Amino acid sequence: MGVLKLHGHPYSGATLRVLSVLHEKGLEFEFVPIDLATGEHKKEHFLSLNPFGQIPAFEDGEIRMFESRAITQYLAHAYADRGTELLFKETKKMAEMSVWAEVEAQKFDPPASKVAFELIFKPMIGGGAADEATVAEQQAALSKVLDVYEARLAGSSYLSGDSFGLADAHHQPLVHYLLGTTAKAAFDSRPYVSRWAADILSRPAWVNALAQQSNAP
Amino acid sequence: MGVLKLHGHPYSGATLRVLSVLHEKGLEFEFVPIDLATGEHKKEHFLSLNPFGQIPAFEDGEIRMFESRAITQYLAHAYADRGTELLFKETKKMAEMSVWAEVEAQKFDPPASKVAFELIFKPMIGGGAADEATVAEQQAALSKVLDVYEARLAGSSYLSGDSFGLADAHHQPLVHYLLGTTAKAAFDSRPYVSRWAADILSRPAWVNALAQQSNAP
Repeated sequence: MGVLKLHGHPYSGATLRVLSVLHEKGLEFEFVPIDLATGEHKKEHFLSLNPFGQIPAFEDGEIRMFESRAITQYLAHAYADRGTELLFKETKKMAEMSVWAEVEAQKFDPPASKVAFELIFKPMIGGGAADEATVAEQQAALSKVLDVYEARLAGSSYLSGDSFGLADAHHQPLVHYLLGTTAKAAFDSRPYVSRWAADILSRPAWVNALAQQSNAP
Repeated sequence: MGVLKLHGHPYSGATLRVLSVLHEKGLEFEFVPIDLATGEHKKEHFLSLNPFGQIPAFEDGEIRMFESRAITQYLAHAYADRGTELLFKETKKMAEMSVWAEVEAQKFDPPASKVAFELIFKPMIGGGAADEATVAEQQAALSKVLDVYEARLAGSSYLSGDSFGLADAHHQPLVHYLLGTTAKAAFDSRPYVSRWAADILSRPAWVNALAQQSNAP
């Protein structure tokens, strides 16, 4: 494998998702900050890395990737013998983890990212006040997802299974952001979800990923 | 591995996605029709298979799964030596396919499924006329995605890479449905996308998956 480069912004959830996994695997990498304010991600150089013009993008020598969950899967597979094991070898366990990784992408992320956008990123970029109707609607959708999580986590330490895995890691950025908003109540009121959230956010790799924010302009 | 059972409905895109992969792998399976009209998917038996109450659900002996893309990934891995090879062994090729599989889930599916809902499923379930503003907005989003696909397919026979793979298979249901709507124009106007769509929909496994519809009540 070659030199690892992550192109992104440390406030972007998708960038943080990859940063966390890089730290879990204990990999050396170069962080290449992308200046979203000047639209660097819509310029030719960045578009050659990701034609959709979105962060993050990633390079491992001649391998070039985008889409945060594809990058983390790649890292978990290609560096299976490094750091934390984030995939499971046993077929049944891996099948279970695949299900919960898809649940994150298809069920959790859509409402969670809409709530985070309205309550955190929209004000941050000067986009005005949150749309309260959207927040209410998406928080209701998120609560239904967290009901299913509560039942899952009552019988399993992690969504991935009996140990921390990729499906849990994928949740870290949005869980972190949501706990800083009114959506925190939906986590606090569910004891298993609340314990799990505290657990995944206390991991040293996640703490290291977040530390990238203190270097941001 | 055990007896394979797919619980679903043959008009559901997610069910068709799994059916196509089962046929690509040449696997014997039992199709268990779920009666959506009577809300069978919201009843206790089905909720024990998928706590989100959505089709499809899948069983392979004692392995129980939901989320169509998790099921297809499982089938492609667990039955790697059967039928069509849908994953690539070479790391760089697999990294590339992972990117395009994520693009399907994150970029293509959201607008494509909203257009299909408004133009096909909403009238089918007696939900009234399509919301034209939603259709226009989502078709515009879909067109931007297809612009990226056109560039990708100009240099690569398939989104997955130089041969058909899981990332292509995941597109079959919504491409099939959209070609029966006004969104067809967005495919027809892009020669590489148009050729690719015709190619993936002409595969015998897909034709067999669709044939399940003729048994539907």
